Amino acid sequence: MSARWWRTGAATIRRLLQTTEPGHNNTVVARGWLKSLRRQKRVAFAALTDGTTARPLQVVLSPETAEHLNVGSAVEVSGTLAESPGKGQALELQAANVSVIGDCDTASYPVQGRDASAEFLRTIPHMRMRTSTLAAALRVRSCLTQLTHRIFAEWDFASVHTPILTSNDCEGGGDVFSVTAPHHHHRHSESSQPSDGTSDSTGTGGRLRSNRNSGNSGNGSEADDAAAVTTAGLFSRPFHLTVSGQLHAEAIACGAYPRVYTFGPTFRAENSHTPRHLAEFYMLEAEMAFASLDDCLDLQDDFISAAAAQLMHAAGDDLDMLWSKEPATRERVQALAKGSYERITYTEAVKALEEHHAKTAFTLAPCWGRDLAYEHEQFIANMCEGPVFITNYPKAIKPFYMLQDDSPPSQGATVAAADLIVPGIGELTGGSAREHRLDHLHANITEQLGAAAAADLEWYLDLRRFGSVPHAGFGLGFERLLLAVTGLKNVRDVIPFPRHPGVCYL
Amino acid sequence: MSARWWRTGAATIRRLLQTTEPGHNNTVVARGWLKSLRRQKRVAFAALTDGTTARPLQVVLSPETAEHLNVGSAVEVSGTLAESPGKGQALELQAANVSVIGDCDTASYPVQGRDASAEFLRTIPHMRMRTSTLAAALRVRSCLTQLTHRIFAEWDFASVHTPILTSNDCEGGGDVFSVTAPHHHHRHSESSQPSDGTSDSTGTGGRLRSNRNSGNSGNGSEADDAAAVTTAGLFSRPFHLTVSGQLHAEAIACGAYPRVYTFGPTFRAENSHTPRHLAEFYMLEAEMAFASLDDCLDLQDDFISAAAAQLMHAAGDDLDMLWSKEPATRERVQALAKGSYERITYTEAVKALEEHHAKTAFTLAPCWGRDLAYEHEQFIANMCEGPVFITNYPKAIKPFYMLQDDSPPSQGATVAAADLIVPGIGELTGGSAREHRLDHLHANITEQLGAAAAADLEWYLDLRRFGSVPHAGFGLGFERLLLAVTGLKNVRDVIPFPRHPGVCYL
Repeated sequence: MSARWWRTGAATIRRLLQTTEPGHNNTVVARGWLKSLRRQKRVAFAALTDGTTARPLQVVLSPETAEHLNVGSAVEVSGTLAESPGKGQALELQAANVSVIGDCDTASYPVQGRDASAEFLRTIPHMRMRTSTLAAALRVRSCLTQLTHRIFAEWDFASVHTPILTSNDCEGGGDVFSVTAPHHHHRHSESSQPSDGTSDSTGTGGRLRSNRNSGNSGNGSEADDAAAVTTAGLFSRPFHLTVSGQLHAEAIACGAYPRVYTFGPTFRAENSHTPRHLAEFYMLEAEMAFASLDDCLDLQDDFISAAAAQLMHAAGDDLDMLWSKEPATRERVQALAKGSYERITYTEAVKALEEHHAKTAFTLAPCWGRDLAYEHEQFIANMCEGPVFITNYPKAIKPFYMLQDDSPPSQGATVAAADLIVPGIGELTGGSAREHRLDHLHANITEQLGAAAAADLEWYLDLRRFGSVPHAGFGLGFERLLLAVTGLKNVRDVIPFPRHPGVCYL
Repeated sequence: MSARWWRTGAATIRRLLQTTEPGHNNTVVARGWLKSLRRQKRVAFAALTDGTTARPLQVVLSPETAEHLNVGSAVEVSGTLAESPGKGQALELQAANVSVIGDCDTASYPVQGRDASAEFLRTIPHMRMRTSTLAAALRVRSCLTQLTHRIFAEWDFASVHTPILTSNDCEGGGDVFSVTAPHHHHRHSESSQPSDGTSDSTGTGGRLRSNRNSGNSGNGSEADDAAAVTTAGLFSRPFHLTVSGQLHAEAIACGAYPRVYTFGPTFRAENSHTPRHLAEFYMLEAEMAFASLDDCLDLQDDFISAAAAQLMHAAGDDLDMLWSKEPATRERVQALAKGSYERITYTEAVKALEEHHAKTAFTLAPCWGRDLAYEHEQFIANMCEGPVFITNYPKAIKPFYMLQDDSPPSQGATVAAADLIVPGIGELTGGSAREHRLDHLHANITEQLGAAAAADLEWYLDLRRFGSVPHAGFGLGFERLLLAVTGLKNVRDVIPFPRHPGVCYL
């Protein structure tokens, strides 16, 4: 295979600075966008960036050349890379030639200087990543994404793609986005044609219990088809955007591959206007067969600490730049990288909260049996001086799929679940051992969701009918992990194109 | 960090077989599902699998122990790993103890034996990955996913997450899924509250041109809000599921990071009933700034050949197993791994097709200016004896964003675009240089999509206003690449939970 230009040192400014030695005979070419221009009487300085590194490349050029350049323009600069006598950078590019690739009207260019607010920049998501902070957030996100795949690959976890379109609502909250397809006329001649030697039509012979009432859309009567088209367009039943890949990941972990992770977009149609919520956000979810809650906490501990440690190594320059604005972040990331997070039970936590509440009142009174509020979680995290797993929540406030604690002292009142709370961030992960006993799971579903839901979840019950195993898993809010490591304050700034109530730009 | 069990050799059967030496003093523990049981008079054999490797672990046990076991059950076996005298495996586990973790009613267990058709298995997606073929497909998909991130990371490409919810329709085909949110009442007290020091409300001050008519939903009057809720629930304008991340990826490549890839789900609400189409499928899309069509083809060449070569190394056992059913696949994957795919122009291709058509008629007559049909593409791929880029298509049949060829012989009649056609698979990738000239792009959009679309795409035009650069990119259908490497015939079998017209199981 030939050495393409994107594999060579000259291709990005980051590689250029990493791999090129300064010297008079060393002519290099750099391409990027002009971030700033500073003209003096005898010399001019330009900051050139292509977004691949936290520090722009300082270009030294003549005032005459600089005269014709505009901030924001794309340029190609050739010249000599030399040691820089100025402070702020080790190397500088002494330009022999500057050619403008694409000009920019500086007067209307919206991302100049340091005065643009985060709020204004959110209105121009296609432009804001040209600013230093958003560019660093983009690089850290990329690095953490690639590290995530690398770490799980090393630990023999399979990467699986759970579906976005689904009729399951794992959390049962009801805040789901509905999806409809255009109203095609079903073409019977085509849908009953074999396409690969077997018939592509659906329904006949299908044993999937949850579809037994709607399984004949592909080859039913005209009347049936019309009804299907009316209710859900292309598909035979209503469907929506996934709120979690957990149930599907369990199906793979329980019989197909014992350790899986899924990392992709999930959706909540909540009307939440907080800096910690998005309507479209990324979740890392992992499931392990033959595993307990303790195994699951160990896995989270291992993953988050490995990711934080490797990120500090791989994206150190970006983190340094981001942390300079929020110095306390360094300590938090170091605590994350250290691992071995505290673990306390919900019951212990409520006891501590009640004691505190007696002296200094919270806005909401803590009470065993109720969910913890953000202020409560933060109190516990501060009390433990770092990330803390709160474990064994009351069964009544948790979803149907969590394993009931049967041994004393719980005796069925709690479940083997845990949330990881991080100071300043709130809930970073939520996980549990899953109820693997068919009778208990069936009872939970019927009690919490009703008999109809139990029929819809027959496929999920199958996992407990045919070779059930104790298993556990967790979900991690990727944007919250990014807040934790970058020190940024709003999840809208660590995702390129944020979607939240009222806003779906571009 | 402690050595957790998922990092040790004992944790999966694959690792067990890779890292454990046979020997009488070597007691090991294996956990998995019983795939088959064969009872003889003095001895019994069980095939144990946990899905991590193509070949099950042979367990040798007493007929008495086997008596109480059922196919499909989850078990834990401890014993000695020894060299196997039988054929078919190098090692076998001589069981000292077998304990049942989760029993299975063999009579109703749906995934036994070799007689289940691919079509039947598609009706039980939560179970079918327990079969050898689907398990291998799952592992190959995982391996190729992890390789993709690894290769692009090595080449300094940033991993970016382009949005699923969008109001842009890159391809303009209209076959999009619409999304609606539940009708919340907008809570003004909350939406106008500051959340992180800055106001979280949207709209005021926003300069995003495409949103200027709908930018005040977050803090408008009650009447405005009611209208917004009626039309699109949580958001201020209608939106749908993305058909491609390209335009958003361009926004990042053109000014933020010069080389990006996005790898995630995309959606087409087409009523297509073919073994090559899904309603929800995965696309790998890459964009490079400062790049031509040739660079883009080189990149595809490099990526696909590196992925195929590394996959043969990393998933050799799975590929051997899958290829045993479709021996011609080996040759195709070797051709993919070799790289340097043929390149011929659309005009040359049509000439060859017309010559052939004169002798042996195609179903559809080839004609310069029309799209190539599947039969045409396959003819060209066979003629070139392997993967082939067909380049420089007529401008009139391609989308607005493609760069017009201005030099002779085209003189504006064609665009700098290419599709990669693979024998037996069809179109694997489609890519182009992007029109980076503001005036040309504006004219294309207005001509193809109308003036209203041009207003909606002002943000995209901004990329050509502020430091425009020549750039190029491509999209690759991930399931089609999986067909190419596995030899499977239907995209529904290389994705865990396929969605296509009539079917959205689970």
